[in-house]
Amino acid sequence: MNTLPKDFPVTDKLANRTQWPEHTIPFSLQDLAEKRFWPEGFRAGIASAGIKTDKPDLMVIVSDKPSTAAAVFTRNLCSAAPVSVSKKHLERSASSIRAIVCNSGNANAATGNRGLEDAKSMADKTAGVLGAAPHEVLVSSTGVIGVPLPVDRISNALDAFSGGKLESSGKEAAEAIMTTDTFPKFQALDVSLSFGKVRLCGIAKGAGMICPDMATMLAFLVTDAKIGQPLLREMLQKANRKSFNTITVDGDTSTNDMAAILSNGSIGEEIAPETKDAELFYSALESLMTFLARLIVKDGEGATKLVAIHVEGAESVSDAQKVARTVAGSSLVKTALHGEDANWGRILAAAGRSGAVFNPETVSIKFNDLIILEPGYVSDFSEEAAKRVLSLSEYSITVSLGKGNGAATVHTCDLSKEYIDINGSYRT
Amino acid sequence: MNTLPKDFPVTDKLANRTQWPEHTIPFSLQDLAEKRFWPEGFRAGIASAGIKTDKPDLMVIVSDKPSTAAAVFTRNLCSAAPVSVSKKHLERSASSIRAIVCNSGNANAATGNRGLEDAKSMADKTAGVLGAAPHEVLVSSTGVIGVPLPVDRISNALDAFSGGKLESSGKEAAEAIMTTDTFPKFQALDVSLSFGKVRLCGIAKGAGMICPDMATMLAFLVTDAKIGQPLLREMLQKANRKSFNTITVDGDTSTNDMAAILSNGSIGEEIAPETKDAELFYSALESLMTFLARLIVKDGEGATKLVAIHVEGAESVSDAQKVARTVAGSSLVKTALHGEDANWGRILAAAGRSGAVFNPETVSIKFNDLIILEPGYVSDFSEEAAKRVLSLSEYSITVSLGKGNGAATVHTCDLSKEYIDINGSYRT
Repeated sequence: MNTLPKDFPVTDKLANRTQWPEHTIPFSLQDLAEKRFWPEGFRAGIASAGIKTDKPDLMVIVSDKPSTAAAVFTRNLCSAAPVSVSKKHLERSASSIRAIVCNSGNANAATGNRGLEDAKSMADKTAGVLGAAPHEVLVSSTGVIGVPLPVDRISNALDAFSGGKLESSGKEAAEAIMTTDTFPKFQALDVSLSFGKVRLCGIAKGAGMICPDMATMLAFLVTDAKIGQPLLREMLQKANRKSFNTITVDGDTSTNDMAAILSNGSIGEEIAPETKDAELFYSALESLMTFLARLIVKDGEGATKLVAIHVEGAESVSDAQKVARTVAGSSLVKTALHGEDANWGRILAAAGRSGAVFNPETVSIKFNDLIILEPGYVSDFSEEAAKRVLSLSEYSITVSLGKGNGAATVHTCDLSKEYIDINGSYRT
Repeated sequence: MNTLPKDFPVTDKLANRTQWPEHTIPFSLQDLAEKRFWPEGFRAGIASAGIKTDKPDLMVIVSDKPSTAAAVFTRNLCSAAPVSVSKKHLERSASSIRAIVCNSGNANAATGNRGLEDAKSMADKTAGVLGAAPHEVLVSSTGVIGVPLPVDRISNALDAFSGGKLESSGKEAAEAIMTTDTFPKFQALDVSLSFGKVRLCGIAKGAGMICPDMATMLAFLVTDAKIGQPLLREMLQKANRKSFNTITVDGDTSTNDMAAILSNGSIGEEIAPETKDAELFYSALESLMTFLARLIVKDGEGATKLVAIHVEGAESVSDAQKVARTVAGSSLVKTALHGEDANWGRILAAAGRSGAVFNPETVSIKFNDLIILEPGYVSDFSEEAAKRVLSLSEYSITVSLGKGNGAATVHTCDLSKEYIDINGSYRT
């Protein structure tokens, strides 16, 4: 680790506490700093359009050949212009996407017809520079809502990529899509399949207060494996439910959210549905997306702690989700986590108003393995032991309702004063 | 005003910006400091049971004769022991309630059978001291969850009231039920009816983050008017929907919430249903409860601003409520209000994820009378003018959806760093 470049920004934030599947080899910090990041046939470029003055604010990921693509989008009624445009392009060209272009600093949301024209022209220009068709480009924006996109400056900046000048690393690409993020989020895996190794990598951004208000979250994944569109879409949707949707509340999405995956088939045989390889690839995808999702929570605005809320023993999965989301989204719970206060009464009160049906007297609560509350309101834990768990930067809270078999997990962070600083004057 | 006692704590917080109905005379600050507060036949006492070390923590309001009573309670599944006991007593004695007893510092919630016994014995002791039957006492608690009630100390402290030593003012009674409140909440009205004047007064506590997490809210109202139980209940429920339920999200209630009214009939004729007097009394009640509700928001933990979120032009009242509640509860909106940042994009994004159906392009937004957003995403307001509104301590935000006639209002406050301070270590 000593030879990591001094300015390499991902210290322990990216450190690997995840249990990766055995058939995957995640990049070490050293690898991320030194090795080529992108899968075979993918390249990336970054540029400065001057929307954000302190850093590059424009990024493209390009596939040398047409890729199969799938994406999930925000369900917010006020979805942004680039979401509409990307949806249309994906409908038409789900088997021949060539690039993803994304700017930070401006969401191009609540910008009406002009916004749609701007998003289209961003795709057009990208296509022109890369020699692709406009509908082969997915377009994405993140940043302030309601301000027209400075599309001329973006267009000029895109010229930097003409002639194929696309030599940016995963770290650089991840940095270019950051807004209030405090560190770039990226990771690459080599995945062993029956015929050999493929690479799967992803970058993400997002640092909002995840519950109840997610700020814009974006994730772009690329692989050189060969996967047909229906299977790719199915895998992305399923992994999304297990990863990004455990940090967002369904429907509680911002105007620009998007997670997309491109598969360009540069390596090996096609991964067919219902095969061992499909299973192996899926588990790698779910792991990577969960890793990126947890990085987003870890970078929650002002957050100092990453806490997994596990709910079990609910009458149904839906009830478990209600409880997990209400506890994870409770400002009173989140401030108690910040204050390292073992205030289990707030957890119980949040569960009680979640809409799930259970008997409060059969509830038990654990912090990691430490029993905090036993059924019948028995609570005689050691404050010292509780403090030891609560002072960790990552831990879990398990709420057992004692009713049925429904279970769910939601990842949350604490609520600190820095959140107020960051969000009190975001727009100005 | 110059002759107000120096320690009188209700400065401009209680100042009267409310539009009271013409047939009511609210107490001025001077009146509150000097005049007898309670309606005819009511008295109050406070005492220290040592649960809170810095102030009296026990309060009774006593009616010299049996009162008609009505109450609304929390819908939280984990409702506290005193809520269960009060519900039972009210079922049995809705026309003969003699007293309300309330302690602060301990919620007696999540305390199981022992909690129920403790709540009952608190009612028993109060009844004994006052010469009433136990089921003629409503009992209430507020404070930390999950800690057994120190019922012996409460019992000893209640002895202070034996022999009718009940000489506390409205201010003192309101102070005794405070937890994290920064000022006592109370007001009295003289209400002109066909036969003369009756008095209606109320005290309240509550200072939680009202949306989405209400901390315990209590309100106790008493009147010397004569009102039968069905009418009294109907009036309380209706006024509650218009007042306390516009600061709480339905169902988002804490373990102990309760609003109760006693009518002891000391003055004048019985107010019959569907009469002019019933109408006049109801409008006074709604005004007083709204006034108290707004005081609770104004005292939101760390709050510096009181903002009414009006939603109009929704397809239905239910849709209007969804939008108003989601906007009012959004941490991103609340931090922007705190930062005095005219970030209408966050308001629109919150509306978009509320579940209400509308066309974002027909939405307009006003801060007081200043147009911030016009349909078609037209926004060319003066930042300076917006700042003038946003720097006020009270203002309104109107979101017009441009679809139908549904309207709703929710009162909210800003989210400040002090909220984190107050809640980070509440229990310890």
